[in-house]
Amino acid sequence: MPATKPEQKPRLVVLGSGWGACRLLKDIDTRLYDVICVSPRNHMVFTPLLASTCVGTLEFRSVAEPVRSIQPALSLLPDSYYFLARCTDINTDQHEVHCEALQEDIDDGKGEGGNKFSVAYDKLVIATGAEASTFGITGVHEHALFLRDVKNAMDIRTKLLLNLMKCEIPGTSMEEKARLLHCVVVGGGPTGVEFSGELSDFIRHDVHHKFAHVKDLIHVTLIEANEILSSFDVRLREYAVNQLTKTGVKLVRGMVKEVLPEKLLLTDGTEVPYGLLVWSTGVGPSPFVRNLPFEKSPGGRIGVDETLKVPGVEDVYAIGDCSGYLERTNKTVLPALAQVAERQGKYVAKALNKMAKAGEGHAKAHITPADPFVYRHLGSMATVGRYKALVDLRESNKSRGLSMKGFLSWIVWRSAYLTRVISWRNRLYVAVNWATTFLFGRDISRF
Amino acid sequence: MPATKPEQKPRLVVLGSGWGACRLLKDIDTRLYDVICVSPRNHMVFTPLLASTCVGTLEFRSVAEPVRSIQPALSLLPDSYYFLARCTDINTDQHEVHCEALQEDIDDGKGEGGNKFSVAYDKLVIATGAEASTFGITGVHEHALFLRDVKNAMDIRTKLLLNLMKCEIPGTSMEEKARLLHCVVVGGGPTGVEFSGELSDFIRHDVHHKFAHVKDLIHVTLIEANEILSSFDVRLREYAVNQLTKTGVKLVRGMVKEVLPEKLLLTDGTEVPYGLLVWSTGVGPSPFVRNLPFEKSPGGRIGVDETLKVPGVEDVYAIGDCSGYLERTNKTVLPALAQVAERQGKYVAKALNKMAKAGEGHAKAHITPADPFVYRHLGSMATVGRYKALVDLRESNKSRGLSMKGFLSWIVWRSAYLTRVISWRNRLYVAVNWATTFLFGRDISRF
Ligand SMILES: Cc1cc2nc3c(=O)[nH]c(=O)nc-3n(C[C@H](O)[C@H](O)[C@H](O)COP(=O)(O)OP(=O)(O)OC[C@H]3O[C@@H](n4cnc5c(N)ncnc54)[C@H](O)[C@@H]3O)c2cc1C
Ligand SMILES: Cc1cc2nc3c(=O)[nH]c(=O)nc-3n(C[C@H](O)[C@H](O)[C@H](O)COP(=O)(O)OP(=O)(O)OC[C@H]3O[C@@H](n4cnc5c(N)ncnc54)[C@H](O)[C@@H]3O)c2cc1C
Repeated sequence: MPATKPEQKPRLVVLGSGWGACRLLKDIDTRLYDVICVSPRNHMVFTPLLASTCVGTLEFRSVAEPVRSIQPALSLLPDSYYFLARCTDINTDQHEVHCEALQEDIDDGKGEGGNKFSVAYDKLVIATGAEASTFGITGVHEHALFLRDVKNAMDIRTKLLLNLMKCEIPGTSMEEKARLLHCVVVGGGPTGVEFSGELSDFIRHDVHHKFAHVKDLIHVTLIEANEILSSFDVRLREYAVNQLTKTGVKLVRGMVKEVLPEKLLLTDGTEVPYGLLVWSTGVGPSPFVRNLPFEKSPGGRIGVDETLKVPGVEDVYAIGDCSGYLERTNKTVLPALAQVAERQGKYVAKALNKMAKAGEGHAKAHITPADPFVYRHLGSMATVGRYKALVDLRESNKSRGLSMKGFLSWIVWRSAYLTRVISWRNRLYVAVNWATTFLFGRDISRF
Repeated sequence: MPATKPEQKPRLVVLGSGWGACRLLKDIDTRLYDVICVSPRNHMVFTPLLASTCVGTLEFRSVAEPVRSIQPALSLLPDSYYFLARCTDINTDQHEVHCEALQEDIDDGKGEGGNKFSVAYDKLVIATGAEASTFGITGVHEHALFLRDVKNAMDIRTKLLLNLMKCEIPGTSMEEKARLLHCVVVGGGPTGVEFSGELSDFIRHDVHHKFAHVKDLIHVTLIEANEILSSFDVRLREYAVNQLTKTGVKLVRGMVKEVLPEKLLLTDGTEVPYGLLVWSTGVGPSPFVRNLPFEKSPGGRIGVDETLKVPGVEDVYAIGDCSGYLERTNKTVLPALAQVAERQGKYVAKALNKMAKAGEGHAKAHITPADPFVYRHLGSMATVGRYKALVDLRESNKSRGLSMKGFLSWIVWRSAYLTRVISWRNRLYVAVNWATTFLFGRDISRF
């Protein structure tokens, strides 16, 4: 797609369809811009609820929102598009992005040989997110499952149900059964903790009568090198530890050295056999981001200034998990959170709308300086199993403020998410899913 | 699992988890029998609604019912089990079935090398269904998609959405676009017609605004060698032809000679390029059934007598699509219908319950002769797109009787299925799915 002409609408290209990109897409004024979204995923994933889909509390569909529903102009306007493709490179001199279409049903970055094409931009927003970090530990990519996408959640679910059913097959040794039903979660951040909680919930309330033959064999272990939920208030942390232990999750302090097909090795020499291994130790920059010729922030993200612009090049912005303040801004890199990405998407959309209105929407236009982006942390939340959650409303790690735990905060957690799931369709689905899980238990069919 | 002892409960082994098996599992008295169900699929598929899941009218989960929910005793009783495995062979002398556990997530019969085990039975019911028939036409298995299972429906959906998105990629030629968006259905039976109707519905109501860029390029062609819906009343048939044509489905009389990766060849020499090919030309016996050392019915199914027993061997019954009356019974083989399989499951469950009560539940017991199975056809139904259906209440092809078409019969169709979906959970889901599709349109996310 060639560059736009001055008499045409300026073209905004957005890379990605996650929290940051989708908030931006929702807020951008499509009377001012033609919009192109390039992403290997045609939907946004409502990540805070993803852990619940692995055990059937929620349906997969309920946590996915098609980009075309978020921004209908992508299919309705003659020059706005969503492309199922991956950006491979950016040419900032030519003002164009190079992309590769997905050939088959491969989202994992390994697909190759799709049609290549380029799209010229007037403005570019990079919101390609981060990648699960494995610290170079051998075997993680081969044997562990991640929890980043709906596909991951489906794989976890399939594996869990398969292992439960394998255990019942006559002739399976007790040792093999114990291994198959040992679910190991590595990483004690909110995602690891929530997933462990959902698992132990599933075990106590569904496995117990739907897989009664093997119910006493299934166990969850959560491995963390430091403290679990280290970003939360200390009282909340203690509460989480108690809750998890009470519901049968074994907490292990340890560091993984190597992952083998059926067991993992800790640095202290312990061997941990597993049937299901979920890896959730935080995120780092993706190869795409690492290869971009931009200055990087501490931690290797795309460096941005206070207005989320990539300095040194024209018309390029970066938001969400893929971007971070440059060291010289004297601001700390913001945490990899949906909250941050969403707020940044909103901020950049507003800035871009303002530019276009001021006649600065085209490439290389003179840009009136914008007010810097300011992040106010609204608090952190995490569930720890059935009807229990933590809500930490302190503004930062060190400050003082309100923190809640238990049933009430679980209500806060549920309602916060129910009202934040973007479409009414999915709000309805999430509500129906929760109601049916409550009434009938979780679904255990496996396709 | 060794044979039961006379002082133990007799053991009933059921092969399959389809319509026949599940109705039997539901009705069997688990106080009288220990029940083992062996099937590569842990859920029943509500086949009449499967076509709707391909285009997102219904969720996949809504049409699948876990066997453990249908018969909770399979997990709750100490000696009743569901095994995720495939039966490979039956030894009627030893009264045992040989099975192979599924190793990985492969339901398609190609998985090999799983744990092998045998299960002794007192009574055995074979309900392994049939297989899509391809009449030996080359390329069908490699390039066409079938519509038998939830996995098939997922594949169809993925392919359809992928093709829609591929068309929007810059640089795709018009010819390639036309090919990608040509959906071809082979086979004009109820399944082929319903799927074509759903597709054209999806195109007219969802593609038109969610994929507006390519909306004029997508077409559906239904290829049938003879007449469509040949088992239905002639007036209904005409109505169906009119409806389909009106909604943009092209009906082609033709016979497929060969299927190539991107086009198919008809016997009259026509070449038909396609992007999506769905094969639905009826069913025939599976390799498992063909290899069983039993006498066969016309059409190669497992031959049974009037009481659905396999004659010549003890304690073996066969129901549903895998079984047919032996020629010497002078009865015509019943059609491969859910109705038939379900009624047969009910009949055999009743007979088995009666036997066990009379102390004839163990292997090789003296069996009091049962009343023969009698099938009364309750009518056939099919939808032809949005708010239109056919209901044929004649008892047989030749007899006279009520037949309905249009909106009213669509209401009959919906309510018949809503009340027949087995669990309340799924009844609720189907209702919610229909309501949300009506309100918000279909979901188009693709994982
Ligand atoms: C299981 C889980 C639970 C979480 N829970 C919470 C929570 O409770 N609260 C909270 O605040 N945060 C939570 N997070 C973190 C939050 O999801 C992320 O911070 C947020 O998604 C970041 O948004 P983003 O837009 O930067 O990237 P993402 O949402 O990751 O989106 C990145 C997008 O870029 C696309 N992409 C990748 N590479 C390319 C490429 N080369 N070209 C084009 N597109 C590309 C991807 O397909 C994706 O669509 C959770 C994360 C996970 C995984
Ligand atoms: C898309 C579609 C729509 C349909 N619509 C209708 C309709 O509207 N009305 C109607 O009356 N009929 C309909 N049918 C037909 C109906 O579904 C079948 O007649 C019915 O499913 C037959 O039931 P069954 O129990 O014999 O076999 P199935 O339901 O096919 O079940 C067979 C079972 O056996 C298992 N199995 C296979 N091989 C083995 C093995 N070696 N060992 C153990 N288990 C094995 C399979 O996994 C499966 O669980 C439809 C069929 C399809 C595909």
